[in-house]
Amino acid sequence: MKSLGIGLIGTGFMGKCHALAYGSVKAVFGDVPQTRLEVLCDVPAEKAAGLADQFGFARATDDWRDLVADPKVDIVCITTPNKVHREMAMAALQAGKHVHLEKPMALTLDDARAMQALAARSGLKTIVGYNYLHNPAISHARKLIAEGAIGRIVHFRGMVDEDYQADPSLAWTWRATKAGAGLGTLGDLGCHLVSLAAGLVGPIESLIAETRTVHATRPVEAGSDEHRPVENEDIASALLTFENGVHGVISTSRSAWGRKSYIAFEVHGTEGMITFDQERMNELRLYQNRGPVAEQGFKTLLTGPDHPPYGQFVPAAGHQLGFNDLKVIEVHEFLRAIQEDRPAVPSFSDALHFEAVIHAIAEAGAEQKRVSLK
Amino acid sequence: MKSLGIGLIGTGFMGKCHALAYGSVKAVFGDVPQTRLEVLCDVPAEKAAGLADQFGFARATDDWRDLVADPKVDIVCITTPNKVHREMAMAALQAGKHVHLEKPMALTLDDARAMQALAARSGLKTIVGYNYLHNPAISHARKLIAEGAIGRIVHFRGMVDEDYQADPSLAWTWRATKAGAGLGTLGDLGCHLVSLAAGLVGPIESLIAETRTVHATRPVEAGSDEHRPVENEDIASALLTFENGVHGVISTSRSAWGRKSYIAFEVHGTEGMITFDQERMNELRLYQNRGPVAEQGFKTLLTGPDHPPYGQFVPAAGHQLGFNDLKVIEVHEFLRAIQEDRPAVPSFSDALHFEAVIHAIAEAGAEQKRVSLK
Amino acid sequence: MKSLGIGLIGTGFMGKCHALAYGSVKAVFGDVPQTRLEVLCDVPAEKAAGLADQFGFARATDDWRDLVADPKVDIVCITTPNKVHREMAMAALQAGKHVHLEKPMALTLDDARAMQALAARSGLKTIVGYNYLHNPAISHARKLIAEGAIGRIVHFRGMVDEDYQADPSLAWTWRATKAGAGLGTLGDLGCHLVSLAAGLVGPIESLIAETRTVHATRPVEAGSDEHRPVENEDIASALLTFENGVHGVISTSRSAWGRKSYIAFEVHGTEGMITFDQERMNELRLYQNRGPVAEQGFKTLLTGPDHPPYGQFVPAAGHQLGFNDLKVIEVHEFLRAIQEDRPAVPSFSDALHFEAVIHAIAEAGAEQKRVSLK
Amino acid sequence: MKSLGIGLIGTGFMGKCHALAYGSVKAVFGDVPQTRLEVLCDVPAEKAAGLADQFGFARATDDWRDLVADPKVDIVCITTPNKVHREMAMAALQAGKHVHLEKPMALTLDDARAMQALAARSGLKTIVGYNYLHNPAISHARKLIAEGAIGRIVHFRGMVDEDYQADPSLAWTWRATKAGAGLGTLGDLGCHLVSLAAGLVGPIESLIAETRTVHATRPVEAGSDEHRPVENEDIASALLTFENGVHGVISTSRSAWGRKSYIAFEVHGTEGMITFDQERMNELRLYQNRGPVAEQGFKTLLTGPDHPPYGQFVPAAGHQLGFNDLKVIEVHEFLRAIQEDRPAVPSFSDALHFEAVIHAIAEAGAEQKRVSLK
Repeated sequence: MKSLGIGLIGTGFMGKCHALAYGSVKAVFGDVPQTRLEVLCDVPAEKAAGLADQFGFARATDDWRDLVADPKVDIVCITTPNKVHREMAMAALQAGKHVHLEKPMALTLDDARAMQALAARSGLKTIVGYNYLHNPAISHARKLIAEGAIGRIVHFRGMVDEDYQADPSLAWTWRATKAGAGLGTLGDLGCHLVSLAAGLVGPIESLIAETRTVHATRPVEAGSDEHRPVENEDIASALLTFENGVHGVISTSRSAWGRKSYIAFEVHGTEGMITFDQERMNELRLYQNRGPVAEQGFKTLLTGPDHPPYGQFVPAAGHQLGFNDLKVIEVHEFLRAIQEDRPAVPSFSDALHFEAVIHAIAEAGAEQKRVSLK
Repeated sequence: MKSLGIGLIGTGFMGKCHALAYGSVKAVFGDVPQTRLEVLCDVPAEKAAGLADQFGFARATDDWRDLVADPKVDIVCITTPNKVHREMAMAALQAGKHVHLEKPMALTLDDARAMQALAARSGLKTIVGYNYLHNPAISHARKLIAEGAIGRIVHFRGMVDEDYQADPSLAWTWRATKAGAGLGTLGDLGCHLVSLAAGLVGPIESLIAETRTVHATRPVEAGSDEHRPVENEDIASALLTFENGVHGVISTSRSAWGRKSYIAFEVHGTEGMITFDQERMNELRLYQNRGPVAEQGFKTLLTGPDHPPYGQFVPAAGHQLGFNDLKVIEVHEFLRAIQEDRPAVPSFSDALHFEAVIHAIAEAGAEQKRVSLK
Repeated sequence: MKSLGIGLIGTGFMGKCHALAYGSVKAVFGDVPQTRLEVLCDVPAEKAAGLADQFGFARATDDWRDLVADPKVDIVCITTPNKVHREMAMAALQAGKHVHLEKPMALTLDDARAMQALAARSGLKTIVGYNYLHNPAISHARKLIAEGAIGRIVHFRGMVDEDYQADPSLAWTWRATKAGAGLGTLGDLGCHLVSLAAGLVGPIESLIAETRTVHATRPVEAGSDEHRPVENEDIASALLTFENGVHGVISTSRSAWGRKSYIAFEVHGTEGMITFDQERMNELRLYQNRGPVAEQGFKTLLTGPDHPPYGQFVPAAGHQLGFNDLKVIEVHEFLRAIQEDRPAVPSFSDALHFEAVIHAIAEAGAEQKRVSLK
Repeated sequence: MKSLGIGLIGTGFMGKCHALAYGSVKAVFGDVPQTRLEVLCDVPAEKAAGLADQFGFARATDDWRDLVADPKVDIVCITTPNKVHREMAMAALQAGKHVHLEKPMALTLDDARAMQALAARSGLKTIVGYNYLHNPAISHARKLIAEGAIGRIVHFRGMVDEDYQADPSLAWTWRATKAGAGLGTLGDLGCHLVSLAAGLVGPIESLIAETRTVHATRPVEAGSDEHRPVENEDIASALLTFENGVHGVISTSRSAWGRKSYIAFEVHGTEGMITFDQERMNELRLYQNRGPVAEQGFKTLLTGPDHPPYGQFVPAAGHQLGFNDLKVIEVHEFLRAIQEDRPAVPSFSDALHFEAVIHAIAEAGAEQKRVSLK
């Protein structure tokens, strides 16, 4: 297959992560087309130019429509704030480009539905940045579950926390608004956990929930006495019913002191249990009710070449993958999907379910009622 | 104060635990009256006699009313199956004895209320076996919270699991019935977690919940094709609203493979977090948002003499208390309360709230509605 | 068998631990003679009397020779400072009493040899307080090794640390002297580790070593400018050759900040590994090179009824034994040995080897040469 | 500064790791010259060509002398088997190239000395692949030590293990020979630990040691009855005296089942302790004897932007770096050293000390004597 030209919009946390991943995926995996880093977009133009040089892009622009229109660009990566996702993604699809979009898809579920509908009609490939799904430890958990290693699944619990909004003296930003950010912790963190829950247990059918805003207002700037309201939730919890009848519990907080990238879950089965915590992302814990009782216990599996595609990065077990490596695996999945003309996972269609769940949690919490996903 | 005579009904798991605790509490603490192990009751009489010899009781009986009536008995300890708790506890109170009752108080909340009312009228002392409350690590957590070590509490999460009902081939017993056992995992395990939640955060105001029975039927005996229904829940989860407005999430399972005595919680505050897991009962984890960010992290506090009353057992830190030691602390609290003529913690009144919560969870799960505790 | 009368010399850390263990061993295990707490000895007499009342001893004395001579005493427990061990233990044996002696046996190896020789001639039973040997987790490790669960043993590593001498401002005491305490960290802590090494791998043949005194002097009292020399070691490390050819490494410090009761080891075998840490004394970690590589990992075994005699304390797994429970198991071993007229483990003969090793380490460190244990 | 051309010899584990690091270092850090991946060398030529395409090198060769002679190459990376390190490194230096060499430097200490001498005369820059030194957690440990966060260092302990030689049925290879591999576990693993010990505590002065070969022979091929001798050590341990008088203990095994990348150490100070384990490479544990005793404990620091250069990879804490990221930091150090015309760390001179230590351990073990490093 011919090489693929990459256009990247955004140069922040996720922008750099995409640049690194598209820059190294061929070297890591070998079995994908060459990628050409064609256009990098940010504002102002000088910033874009400087980072294009650093990241290795052929040219820079401060106009994302220019990037989308560039015939050398085959894939448009969107790593901008949520509120412009819809416009950019739809423009890229309309321009005939494959779209690699950071999560969440959009501010509202209606927006996400419109994006998914357009993608479905377009025949183009899409993928959404639910990067934790691509951890070899998670893939192995899914394999173990499919093989019946823990029997029939009967319960799921998950938590996802960070502490970037824990400090009450932090200044108010657009992140605190529905118009700017949409949901709060659900959109930033909760959706990642939902992607894992759905990926491991299956789709969610209905739920009840609670949400809380820990810090009701924030100073307009650090130290100011003037405060503005925080419009979205800091904490959210839900009791899930999966389509297969399994009961699940999830909870998320962006105000959880000490939690830096805590995405922890446990899957209970009739013959064992699997647990995981992203802050120790190279470990999977497995309990099986097998063999002598005196030798039963939770086993810590340290990922290695027997947990693909770990071996593409390091041929020796236990040496540790990092956060940025997950994006390389995600990009590999996307390039392979394009090459093989099949849907990537998770596509806009897959992600739509994850995002329907977080919006349902917000609704169930606000209106104090059961919300169905059907 | 004069010595106190002990009458113990039941010789199983908790019966032996009581016998050991009342036999050693004076040696451990010093500051309590001498205890006399007077009467041990079980059926048949030979079993009671044999265990009275082993445990060091002066005499044995197979008639609990005989024990309750014995003038040498000052304290009646009840460690029998839940369904006889009400009758025994009320008879003991009516006979003028202090009552040390294992949890849960009774099969139904009405029973528990009747018992509490009688105790309140009697002027006698009561205590219920919520032993995990007496862990020095838990007491230290409470002290830290009271001192503001983690700021204002904003969130609580807890889980309590065992796996004693995880095996689907286990035979059906009275534990699976509402008439015999009342609640399922909520009565066995869930109430312990509620005691910690309420002890650390405060009373619960209302909740919504889900319950599940993992194994809908069980064989009448091991290997049989004949099955009987399991009438109570294997799994229960609830979203709590505490009276102070804090949002909490709790979940419990008696079918959680690998979990042996897992009582884990996290208390989120505006300045830090505290976490705990009973399977590592001598450790408390504390995060505080203090000092240089580069040196912030969860600290593992290993209990020692600076966490009273650990030092009564061992004068050197980190040497580890065990499960049976928690009962000694509970007995100490009870004897001190009798000696000082003050309520013990947790008395029937305290425990009534814990048990109201588990019954509310069962109701909220069954009827799919919010249940208020007021 | 008729009941056994106990005389206990010393009421400190270990004295109280003995009192509790002899007071509860019958209740815990059932299968031993009744014990009578006959005489408690300490100075001054009032202290002995007060603690005899608390611990439940029939009478008190401030004269240990009086205790040893008491015809009601069958077993003499010695929990006094090391330098009087020899005199007391030999007097007790000469009076025809079984002897339960705290470790280390004596200040010098010559003393220990004399004690062992007298015990051997006497036909009486002896046991030395190497209590960690009696942890069900350790017994299970020994069983696993004997069954070949980790193949042939090829390597041993161990560390034992506390921090009670870590603070340089602590005042000088007799513990810092050879005449008062004999060895330093080797006598306090190192010998425990040696008991585990020898218990798991076998006797030690020869060794080379290093020793260090971290704080060369200490103030005569807190805050004083006057200092006295510390004569014994704070840190010691040795490279061991076991009789079976296995190579081992051990290290101990009494000045290791943060370590409270750290006794950690790893046993490497040709088919797996076992690791342990006393600060999590209810856990044993086991790796076996069995089954699919993708599911190999260290398994955490939480002790339970399948790890005897855990079940005598608690019938449910994972509920946790404590430090004081280990002494109850040790006392049980001693009473059973007396009842069955067989040597207890570890007897004076067993302990002599452990103590020969720590003296050899001190010698090898001081003289910079290989020391043979033969 | 103008861009730098890279020539890489070797395409295995470390070869790919170098290719990825030189391919992404500019994007990650920004503050270094552009790198050009010019020549990749391996045999046969087709393999080199295929991997040059995958890794992004401009051309391929099967003749390393051709690569060394290429005027477009400024830096020669050597990731070949140890026995050709000397010849390649010296040829590269003689051709005026900077040299990035994988560890260990050479088969013998004499070879390493010759290489270091030539490098010193050449004025060119050198760096050796002691990549664990570049972990932000390790850099932070060094900073903490320098700041006195744990007081004066008094003791060091370290272990480094893998299990790639644990299986006795593994076939014999050149790795088992002195001529092919030189040292055994000391050369593969032990030298990494020495680099950390020296980096944290300082240079080593003298040592005593033991070495063992666990599997004395290996089958010539899997399943064969014909065996050949294993000439180098599987296990080695040493008692170190650092130049500053600190006593250290280190131990290494390449036959330690369950250990995948275990590089664990503890640094004991007069005011605290630091511990680390590479299998959890994003965590540093710190104990400080400060504040209330009841709140003292080991704190787990999760690396983040406050531990440079973590933030160059991910701007949010706790997201985890991986093994390959350490090589990027190493390459950054090398490019900065070239740019600033200063020695890189660790240069051939630095590495010479690490390797002198492992050869001293082998000698001390073989000849049963103290070996001085002076």
